[in-house]
Amino acid sequence: KIDPDRLWDSLMEMAKIGPGVAGGNNRQTLTDEDAEGRALFQRWCEDAGCTMGLDQMGNMFARREGTDPEALPVYVGSHLDTQPTGGKYDGVLGVLGGLEILRTMNDLGIKTKHPIVVTNFTNEEGTRFAPAMLSSGVFAGIHTQDWAYAKTDAEGKSFGDELERIGWKGDEEVGARKMHAFFELHIEQGPILEAEGKDIGVVTHGQGLSWTQVTITGKDSHTGSTPMPMRRDAGLGMARVLDKVSEIAWSHKPHAVGAAGHIDVYPNSRNVIPGKVVFTVDFRSPDLAVIEDMEARLRVEGQKIADDMELGIEFEKVGGFDPVAFDEGCVTAVRNAAERLGYSHMNLISGAGHDACWINRVAPTAMVMCPCVDGLSHNEAEEITKDWAKAGADVLLHAVLETAEI
Amino acid sequence: KIDPDRLWDSLMEMAKIGPGVAGGNNRQTLTDEDAEGRALFQRWCEDAGCTMGLDQMGNMFARREGTDPEALPVYVGSHLDTQPTGGKYDGVLGVLGGLEILRTMNDLGIKTKHPIVVTNFTNEEGTRFAPAMLSSGVFAGIHTQDWAYAKTDAEGKSFGDELERIGWKGDEEVGARKMHAFFELHIEQGPILEAEGKDIGVVTHGQGLSWTQVTITGKDSHTGSTPMPMRRDAGLGMARVLDKVSEIAWSHKPHAVGAAGHIDVYPNSRNVIPGKVVFTVDFRSPDLAVIEDMEARLRVEGQKIADDMELGIEFEKVGGFDPVAFDEGCVTAVRNAAERLGYSHMNLISGAGHDACWINRVAPTAMVMCPCVDGLSHNEAEEITKDWAKAGADVLLHAVLETAEI
Ligand SMILES: NC(=O)NCCC(=O)O
Ligand SMILES: NC(=O)NCCC(=O)O
Repeated sequence: KIDPDRLWDSLMEMAKIGPGVAGGNNRQTLTDEDAEGRALFQRWCEDAGCTMGLDQMGNMFARREGTDPEALPVYVGSHLDTQPTGGKYDGVLGVLGGLEILRTMNDLGIKTKHPIVVTNFTNEEGTRFAPAMLSSGVFAGIHTQDWAYAKTDAEGKSFGDELERIGWKGDEEVGARKMHAFFELHIEQGPILEAEGKDIGVVTHGQGLSWTQVTITGKDSHTGSTPMPMRRDAGLGMARVLDKVSEIAWSHKPHAVGAAGHIDVYPNSRNVIPGKVVFTVDFRSPDLAVIEDMEARLRVEGQKIADDMELGIEFEKVGGFDPVAFDEGCVTAVRNAAERLGYSHMNLISGAGHDACWINRVAPTAMVMCPCVDGLSHNEAEEITKDWAKAGADVLLHAVLETAEI
Repeated sequence: KIDPDRLWDSLMEMAKIGPGVAGGNNRQTLTDEDAEGRALFQRWCEDAGCTMGLDQMGNMFARREGTDPEALPVYVGSHLDTQPTGGKYDGVLGVLGGLEILRTMNDLGIKTKHPIVVTNFTNEEGTRFAPAMLSSGVFAGIHTQDWAYAKTDAEGKSFGDELERIGWKGDEEVGARKMHAFFELHIEQGPILEAEGKDIGVVTHGQGLSWTQVTITGKDSHTGSTPMPMRRDAGLGMARVLDKVSEIAWSHKPHAVGAAGHIDVYPNSRNVIPGKVVFTVDFRSPDLAVIEDMEARLRVEGQKIADDMELGIEFEKVGGFDPVAFDEGCVTAVRNAAERLGYSHMNLISGAGHDACWINRVAPTAMVMCPCVDGLSHNEAEEITKDWAKAGADVLLHAVLETAEI
C-alpha cells in the first residue's frame, strides 16, 4: 500500500505553487507557475530514480526502468495545470499519485517487467488555450502539433511561443512513444461516489463533449439615446441563446448537460449597447447522438433568435470529443484491484474530459476515481480526504502492478 | 459665423490623440491620452488669448475676459474624454465648438460684457469610473469630492490617484465658480434630427437615468460533471434577468429604454459554470415615475429569478439622475439663434446624460444639438458632416452672444 502522508505532503507542497485567492490554485498552463510546478515534479522524479523525457508539446515522462528491456512501459499520470480558480487535486492527484506508486515500489524493492512512466500532460484544462486536453490530443494524433502551437490565449499569445518562453519545449517527437497501457487516477469532480458512499469509481466510459464558440454581432450604440426599436443588442441576444442552451440540455435529462462558462462582452461599457458578444457553449452527454442533437439545435435555435433580433450570429466548433468506452482489460484490472484491497466501488461514467479519453485511442486505457466533497470541482474549495486519496492511489498501484507484471 | 474648416481641423487634430481601432477614439478619462488631449486644448486656448483655470476634479476653464469686471461669465463646453470604442465628436464638438466661437470673436474683434469660459469636464463618459458626468456632478454639489476620488476602475485604481498621476489635479475649489449661464453643444447621439431633416435640436429636457449594478452569485463548478439539478449557474441567472430588463423597458414604450452594456463573468472559463456575474442595468425615461417603476421591477423580478434558481442576488445603485427641464431663457436664446440664422430646428429631449444636466442645477442652462449619421454614437463609426458641426457652432455662438451681451 502507498504512504498516504507522503502523498498528501506532496499534494500540499505542489499547491504552494500558483496559489489561488481562496485556498485553491491558479497555476494555468504555460505560465511561470506552471514552469515552477514542472521543475518541482522533475526534481521529485529524479530523487525517485527516474529519468525525465520531454516532448515537443511539453508533455513530461518520468520513467522507472523495468526488468525486460523489450517490454513497452505502463503509463500513469494526468496534468499539473489548473483552472484560474481551480482546486488542489484536479489533475495533480493523478500525477503525484503516479509518483507515489513509484516511491512505494522503491521502498518495497518491487521490480516490474514493464517500465512504468509517470506523465504530466500539458494544458489539460483548456482555459487559457482551447481546447482542453490539447497535448494528449496531439499525442494521440487527434490534432496536429502546428494547429496546437497556433492556439492563442485571450491576450493573443500563442501556445507555441509560451511553451518556448517557459523553457519546457522538448525535442522528442510527440506520440512516438508506444504504451502497453495507460491508467489515470482523478477525482470524480461530480457527486455520485460520495452520495453512494463508495471509495472507488471504476470508470467504464467517459461522456463526450462539444464546445461551440458563438459570436453574436449587433451594433454598439448609446444606451440612452438609441430608441428600443433601433437597438441591435448582442448582449440580449446572448441572454436568449443561454436560456435556450439550458432548455436544450434539460430536454435530454437525466444525462445531458449544457452551459456557457466563458462570456466576453464588447466594448463592455455601462452606457454602450453591446455590439459583440463571444461565448462558448459546453454540451456533454455519454450519448453521441444526444451531443449531435444539442449542437444542431443550438445552431438552429440560435440562428432563429438572431434573425428575430436582426443580429448576426456565427458558430465555431472549438473543442469536442466523442463518448469513450475504456479498455475492458484495464477496467477489469482497476475493478480487481479495488476488490482485492477491500475498497467499496462502483462503475462510473466520467462527466469530465480527461487525458485518458484521448490516450484510449492509442493504448489500452482505464481510469480510477475517488470522491470529492459535494462533487465540487473547478472551484478553489475543491476538497478530498486523505483516505480517499489513499484508496485511489492504492488501487492505481495494484492495477499497475497487475498490468506491468511483477 | 464660425469658421467650419478651422473647427473641423481641430476636431481631426484632437482625434489623433488616443485613436481607436476602427476610425474612432479610445481616449478614456485620466489616461495618458486624456492628459495629452488636455495639453493640446490648453495650448489652443492660450493661443486664443485665454487664461486656464483647473479645479481639484481636473475640470478645465479657459477664460476670455469681458468688458464688465463685475459680470459673471457665460460658460460653454462639454468633455474631451471618450468611450473605449467612442467617436470623434461625442463631447469633443462641445469643447472645440466652444473654442471656435472664441476664435471667431477674436477674428471679428467682438467684445462681450460677460466673460466667456470654455470648459472641459472630467470623466463625463463614466466607463472607467462610474457614474457618468462625475465631475460636473461634484461641481453642482451632487456628489462630494471625496466620494468621487474614491471611485475605482476595473483594475482597482482610484479616480483621485489617477487624476494626480496624469498631472491634471488643480488647486481650485470645485463648484466655487458662479455662472451667468451654461450652454453645451453636443451631437444628438440619436436618430431624430436626421430623420426629421432638421439642422438643430433645441434641447428642452433631458431624460433621467438609473444605473443598477447587479451581482448574481452561484457556485463555480465543473460544466461536465455537475448534474443539471445541482447547478447554480450565475450566467444563466444573468441571462434571465437581461431578458426581463428588455421586457420592462418595452412595457413603457415609446419613451423608456433599458439594457446592460457592462457584463463581467467569473471565473470566465469555458468549463466552469459561472459562480458570479456582475452587470450594470441602464434604465432611462423622461418620466421620473417610469424610471422608479423600472428600477423597482428590476429588483422584484430579479429577486424572483434568483430565488427560483437558488442564486444570490444583490442590487447597488451606481449612478442616476432625475429628468431635467432646461432653463426657459437659455432655451429661448438657442431657439432664437437658430431662427435668426435660418437653420431648421425642432425641440428635443436629450436621450443621453450630459454635463449640462448637472450644471442646470446651479446655473441657467441649455443645450444645442446637431444630427449624427444614423443616430449612431458610442461607436467608433460615429459621424457628422462639417455642415452640421457648423450649424451647431453658429447657433452656439449666437446664443452665447445674446446671453453675454455685446
Ligand atoms: N478533468 C477536467 O476538469 N478536465 C477539463 C476538461 C473538461 O472540461 O472536461
Ligand atoms: N453624452 C453621453 O454619452 N454621456 C454619457 C452619459 C450617458 O450615458 O448618457
